[in-house]
Amino acid sequence: MTPEAPLAAALYPLPDADIDRFLQEDVPYGDLTTILLGIGARAGRMVFSTRHETVACCTEEAARLLERVGCHIELLEPSGTLLAAECPLLEVTGRADSLHMGWKAALNLLEAASGIATRMRTLVQEARAVAPGVEVVATRKVFPGTKSVATKAVYAGGGLPHRLGLSESVLVFAQHVAFLDGEEELWIRLHDLKKQAREKKIAVEVTDRAAAVRAAAAGVDIVQVDKMAPEELRNLVQAVREASPATIVAAAGGINESNARAYAATGVDLLVTSAMYWGKPADIAVRMEAMG
Amino acid sequence: MTPEAPLAAALYPLPDADIDRFLQEDVPYGDLTTILLGIGARAGRMVFSTRHETVACCTEEAARLLERVGCHIELLEPSGTLLAAECPLLEVTGRADSLHMGWKAALNLLEAASGIATRMRTLVQEARAVAPGVEVVATRKVFPGTKSVATKAVYAGGGLPHRLGLSESVLVFAQHVAFLDGEEELWIRLHDLKKQAREKKIAVEVTDRAAAVRAAAAGVDIVQVDKMAPEELRNLVQAVREASPATIVAAAGGINESNARAYAATGVDLLVTSAMYWGKPADIAVRMEAMG
Amino acid sequence: MTPEAPLAAALYPLPDADIDRFLQEDVPYGDLTTILLGIGARAGRMVFSTRHETVACCTEEAARLLERVGCHIELLEPSGTLLAAECPLLEVTGRADSLHMGWKAALNLLEAASGIATRMRTLVQEARAVAPGVEVVATRKVFPGTKSVATKAVYAGGGLPHRLGLSESVLVFAQHVAFLDGEEELWIRLHDLKKQAREKKIAVEVTDRAAAVRAAAAGVDIVQVDKMAPEELRNLVQAVREASPATIVAAAGGINESNARAYAATGVDLLVTSAMYWGKPADIAVRMEAMG
Amino acid sequence: MTPEAPLAAALYPLPDADIDRFLQEDVPYGDLTTILLGIGARAGRMVFSTRHETVACCTEEAARLLERVGCHIELLEPSGTLLAAECPLLEVTGRADSLHMGWKAALNLLEAASGIATRMRTLVQEARAVAPGVEVVATRKVFPGTKSVATKAVYAGGGLPHRLGLSESVLVFAQHVAFLDGEEELWIRLHDLKKQAREKKIAVEVTDRAAAVRAAAAGVDIVQVDKMAPEELRNLVQAVREASPATIVAAAGGINESNARAYAATGVDLLVTSAMYWGKPADIAVRMEAMG
Amino acid sequence: MTPEAPLAAALYPLPDADIDRFLQEDVPYGDLTTILLGIGARAGRMVFSTRHETVACCTEEAARLLERVGCHIELLEPSGTLLAAECPLLEVTGRADSLHMGWKAALNLLEAASGIATRMRTLVQEARAVAPGVEVVATRKVFPGTKSVATKAVYAGGGLPHRLGLSESVLVFAQHVAFLDGEEELWIRLHDLKKQAREKKIAVEVTDRAAAVRAAAAGVDIVQVDKMAPEELRNLVQAVREASPATIVAAAGGINESNARAYAATGVDLLVTSAMYWGKPADIAVRMEAMG
Amino acid sequence: MTPEAPLAAALYPLPDADIDRFLQEDVPYGDLTTILLGIGARAGRMVFSTRHETVACCTEEAARLLERVGCHIELLEPSGTLLAAECPLLEVTGRADSLHMGWKAALNLLEAASGIATRMRTLVQEARAVAPGVEVVATRKVFPGTKSVATKAVYAGGGLPHRLGLSESVLVFAQHVAFLDGEEELWIRLHDLKKQAREKKIAVEVTDRAAAVRAAAAGVDIVQVDKMAPEELRNLVQAVREASPATIVAAAGGINESNARAYAATGVDLLVTSAMYWGKPADIAVRMEAMG
Repeated sequence: MTPEAPLAAALYPLPDADIDRFLQEDVPYGDLTTILLGIGARAGRMVFSTRHETVACCTEEAARLLERVGCHIELLEPSGTLLAAECPLLEVTGRADSLHMGWKAALNLLEAASGIATRMRTLVQEARAVAPGVEVVATRKVFPGTKSVATKAVYAGGGLPHRLGLSESVLVFAQHVAFLDGEEELWIRLHDLKKQAREKKIAVEVTDRAAAVRAAAAGVDIVQVDKMAPEELRNLVQAVREASPATIVAAAGGINESNARAYAATGVDLLVTSAMYWGKPADIAVRMEAMG
Repeated sequence: MTPEAPLAAALYPLPDADIDRFLQEDVPYGDLTTILLGIGARAGRMVFSTRHETVACCTEEAARLLERVGCHIELLEPSGTLLAAECPLLEVTGRADSLHMGWKAALNLLEAASGIATRMRTLVQEARAVAPGVEVVATRKVFPGTKSVATKAVYAGGGLPHRLGLSESVLVFAQHVAFLDGEEELWIRLHDLKKQAREKKIAVEVTDRAAAVRAAAAGVDIVQVDKMAPEELRNLVQAVREASPATIVAAAGGINESNARAYAATGVDLLVTSAMYWGKPADIAVRMEAMG
Repeated sequence: MTPEAPLAAALYPLPDADIDRFLQEDVPYGDLTTILLGIGARAGRMVFSTRHETVACCTEEAARLLERVGCHIELLEPSGTLLAAECPLLEVTGRADSLHMGWKAALNLLEAASGIATRMRTLVQEARAVAPGVEVVATRKVFPGTKSVATKAVYAGGGLPHRLGLSESVLVFAQHVAFLDGEEELWIRLHDLKKQAREKKIAVEVTDRAAAVRAAAAGVDIVQVDKMAPEELRNLVQAVREASPATIVAAAGGINESNARAYAATGVDLLVTSAMYWGKPADIAVRMEAMG
Repeated sequence: MTPEAPLAAALYPLPDADIDRFLQEDVPYGDLTTILLGIGARAGRMVFSTRHETVACCTEEAARLLERVGCHIELLEPSGTLLAAECPLLEVTGRADSLHMGWKAALNLLEAASGIATRMRTLVQEARAVAPGVEVVATRKVFPGTKSVATKAVYAGGGLPHRLGLSESVLVFAQHVAFLDGEEELWIRLHDLKKQAREKKIAVEVTDRAAAVRAAAAGVDIVQVDKMAPEELRNLVQAVREASPATIVAAAGGINESNARAYAATGVDLLVTSAMYWGKPADIAVRMEAMG
Repeated sequence: MTPEAPLAAALYPLPDADIDRFLQEDVPYGDLTTILLGIGARAGRMVFSTRHETVACCTEEAARLLERVGCHIELLEPSGTLLAAECPLLEVTGRADSLHMGWKAALNLLEAASGIATRMRTLVQEARAVAPGVEVVATRKVFPGTKSVATKAVYAGGGLPHRLGLSESVLVFAQHVAFLDGEEELWIRLHDLKKQAREKKIAVEVTDRAAAVRAAAAGVDIVQVDKMAPEELRNLVQAVREASPATIVAAAGGINESNARAYAATGVDLLVTSAMYWGKPADIAVRMEAMG
Repeated sequence: MTPEAPLAAALYPLPDADIDRFLQEDVPYGDLTTILLGIGARAGRMVFSTRHETVACCTEEAARLLERVGCHIELLEPSGTLLAAECPLLEVTGRADSLHMGWKAALNLLEAASGIATRMRTLVQEARAVAPGVEVVATRKVFPGTKSVATKAVYAGGGLPHRLGLSESVLVFAQHVAFLDGEEELWIRLHDLKKQAREKKIAVEVTDRAAAVRAAAAGVDIVQVDKMAPEELRNLVQAVREASPATIVAAAGGINESNARAYAATGVDLLVTSAMYWGKPADIAVRMEAMG
């Protein structure tokens, strides 16, 4: 999946309740300044455009939000579109009060979502520059309450979600093992678990090479290595490959744009990261002007 | 308001619906791994503790979330508490399934909120180091859907919100003036506006010194200067002070931890910033262990 | 702001969830009478019209509600429009079952909102008849759960909200002072508070002249006088004006259509009232007829 | 059902979502004044008490709201309790920030609900003073969004709801007949309708005596007479009684505290009114004081 | 009311929040398979059609759900339409990702609702085959959370709801009598109750003939007989008819398609059943094909 | 996972909003019958007990619902407990109005959830009687809006969910292939897809043996066979085992209690079924009695 051809299919709609919420947070009772200036009924146009190369995201939801406050959509670049600097991604017309009610709520959504999408794309590009077959997947560690937006942005940027949550996949942490009678019991239980959960790949998180090799030998599908330096990780990958060629190795913990190449070069199959969630919003310009 | 004595009074509760949402996003049907390992009924303890100096935030909500999945709260540091590294901020006991259902959802909330709170505190400290009387206020530009958490964190870190939204304050942007017949009409309308909105201070955003002085002379209460370099801003402040000593000058646009001192040193009254919202989550360690 | 030219700009949309709620309260499973009479598929028209001079409010939301149950909008007077008696404010066509499902839910909303808007207008007119520069502002004391509707009606009637809530403005009540070491501590703390909350005007509620003068002298921006008779209030205003000409004086407590003139004539800057919220709904006629 | 022994059994709990909503409307991010005064952590007590004879209502929900913001309940008079003037109905302790966050939201709820309950009781008393067997029932014409509160207050005041909505009862309006081929078709269809809707009493709204008698003769269970003066209504009742002694006669339209006796004296079985919904809130005093 | 001419008038819209919920349950972040196959942008058509004779239900809501994910509606048979086998009931076009996002969520809704509607129709037909005047009414015992869908299906199938809930009708169970001083107190209280609740018919549940006759004699409007075999019930009906010809007799408990005729033949007025809620979903075929 | 030792760990809490919803559907304004009988304040006890062998489910949510209306929990058997006939699963005390408000809403929830759980257990037992290693998994085809309850019941009965939805797993249907250039393109795309979705097992639905073998040969992890008779399926399994021993074979379509053994005996790894969702509710007795 190349980020140059982003996954339009991934672009699902956010619930109506989220559109309500975004407006209620920012403009529950209209824009007081517009009201007091008495300019609400004048007609205008508003154009959102990129300042930098940007992967557009949540333009559809920004449009729904703007329509809710009375705007008309004139142009919309779908989520997942890669735009050069200075390109319009959303253009609307409407009364001044409609434009002002929706301006910042829409902008904030576009900037937050497009920021994640654009960083996601960079992470994929960095990793693939040295390891074309590596996959970059996004953790479930989003800002609480933002999962719909964040996951849409991951797809828009050419990434995939890692686990969507605890209920749909199996990943054994040391914190699970803490309730077992040592690693011994883990291997015994994993044997049964694999039979029960035949539709899932079984992942185990490890923090050192020996554990990774033991897990692979025990038939774990995915060995997820947490917070290991690239050089050490490279050795681990080799050791696992020798012990069990089909085992997938995933690296997690601290992977970001500055080290994605180094991690990708270790030979792992997957980079698991939250880095795209926690950066600055995309910088999107808004030009508003009166019409007629 | 010193960040050393954070505003316990600011700590309002998030709505129940948010607790529901945080859980639904991450663990709608339980932790599959715990279920399949068959360890759910074992008893355990989980301690969240700082790795760095951290301003705790949303410990109350994390506790409510953990109680919802069956945990018992043993220790809780209130939102707004400044903690050194390696200090516990939340400690719970419960069955392994309860602990695992709540672990990451609670952690994510604590890290996101405490990250904002800690950055807010740093911003205040940086600014006050050179200008003890300056106030640092947080914009409404939060990640959409996170306003309750983000505003709580702003208070916890010793800051104050700037505007909560468009409906409760008056701030004239160029995008409002675009619907007027030039700046002339603005001054005329502002004259009336001040009589209508007598309970509000009137703010106008400007981008150059001449406009700042004109606005101050026109009786605007707050001149908000957008994206001006500190050295130029210093001159602007002097000019406004000479023209109108009572006018408040606020600086906005691009202010962050690295330049907060420089901006504070310009003599402005207020630093308006979104920088605290858009950084990495606080790094909080979780130790989970079986009991008995 | 003349109520004759109401603030169209103020007319923000209510959330979709409110439309859902209004229908669920009244007609969760259709109109049983229409169903049993077997008339649902017949075509008809329904016209809502004023019986008295009325400021229309929430016609937009009534229309959304009616569209949700299948009606088509033929005519809609925007919220804020002043209508003479016997004027249509909303006209729809549709099947008989659609008309009957929406009829009373829409009517109830129109009557409740337009009642507030029309009383708001009267209050403004009464006050301005004797004091053209006085502003009438609406308290936050709405019927719980109705704030979106009520605030829209306040704007529609030519008024402005007073405080939207506790989180966006500063108003010191005696109940705050109860936690201080007497009024002495208040003045000390207010001195600091004014520096922190530079973007806000600071209001203090008082109940006698001496306190009003002390507050004005202490630099309070707004002295809000609670439940004082007009004649006594007039003296208070004079005393404050002498002591501190720039201090704003607001009157609150028991102001209504019958005494708004008297209060306005005292020379206060602001009348703060809840009277518009608590009266009878506007009387709106509905004519329904079969078509074709 | 005497209003002196109100229906404690009627007191159902409001949904949690309503408690969330009441707080979000008034105090989404805490009480800014308390925060800025720095008094949040001080301990205090708050007592809500009647100023007049009052039927308490929604004390349970006010208590839940206050607990949500951190208060402890010390005393609570259940909804439906008749209290003399100067009696406490709710008493709480807590930190100053908790008390201030909940104060007005709780008060507003108590006053709105108790106002309806108290008026409901007066209406029942007025009507029964002249017609001990008459029942006073409350229409579905509440302020949109307030049905849970309003219906609880109706029960608390010793009344009963009329129809809860359109989906659970049969009441034929002229607006239904408008889609039939005249009154002729109505009687034919009512004949069938009575067989289908055997679990319901069938009501028809009429506006003159002849129609009332025809409806009664046609086997309608309840003849509801809209907006008829008491003297004319008395004649109508006699005519219906003669024609069909078992038919129930209900009077609706414009019935309120000032005319309830006159309407009750007409001999009708039921008074249907909305008057209790649309009056002033109960006047409830709040005393807040610091402790220790 | 013949099921051949179902009650189109009954077809009320479900709330928007339900549409949100149906999608969130099944496809919160898009169809991963479509995304990974890269086929999302291709155009297609999807036709839902019956496999058996079916009463369509919730086609309107399925259409709204499909529109929400980007489909266009080409054909829609309204809820309540009786369709032969192999008939289309909903046809849409759209991108492959839109079609796949909505397919199963829409299908599930259609099958669940139409299954109830079709069984409702069969129940009515069975009962009327032997007792043309009998009415079949649906209990409130739906799967929790599905009342809007289930009630719509009841109407679509030519039935009527029994009680919508506890708040709008009077039905005395033995569990109420348990709190009285025996049946004696019941008759005394019922005497008063009938005066209070004059707008309602009063129902009492009984389990034997003697109690049925006593209830009828006491003036109860509806005697509801729980779980009695048809032959015994027939005797009970005769006994009640002799004692009190106007009393309505309803049979409840265990009535289903296999015994509806036998129960109808007992001479009761009403069959009260939950059988339609708890069967298999209707079998609806979906054909999806690429276009162009 | 033996159903004899059900997965207590799986028992996650339903959201608060669901508890609200269950009550609003059935008893929005209290139990009118209790109110009118005037028995609300009397004390009582209510015991829910099994009539047949039953797997308890949603006792925790029923308890929360009952607490919300004022009951006290005296005994609660956790979800997943296998109970013989005539065993109590929930016991509460409270006022008569509390008991009556919660009775049927709680009962309905218990019966619906326990019905699914009990059928799930039977399905597992039937299948394992002939194939101890087979796993029975539950489809996502729940009644819309009931997924939280239904999935909890699946776990309680000793089953596991199949796919939770479209967003977290990969299952290629013919309806996906319809947008490809024949099966050829499928195998090409699957090759890439497997690299992208390395954390997932890839499933393909087939309807004949040849397709199953081709899919297995193409490296598909799971071949899901839809609607094939057991005898034919047995041959298919053998053919797939010969071609690709590690491929998992799942049977879906029409599997229920009556044929689960036959399907299990075919040698498939997984039975995928919706049968547990669509049967009658568990039969749970309620005994209510006055106390003291």
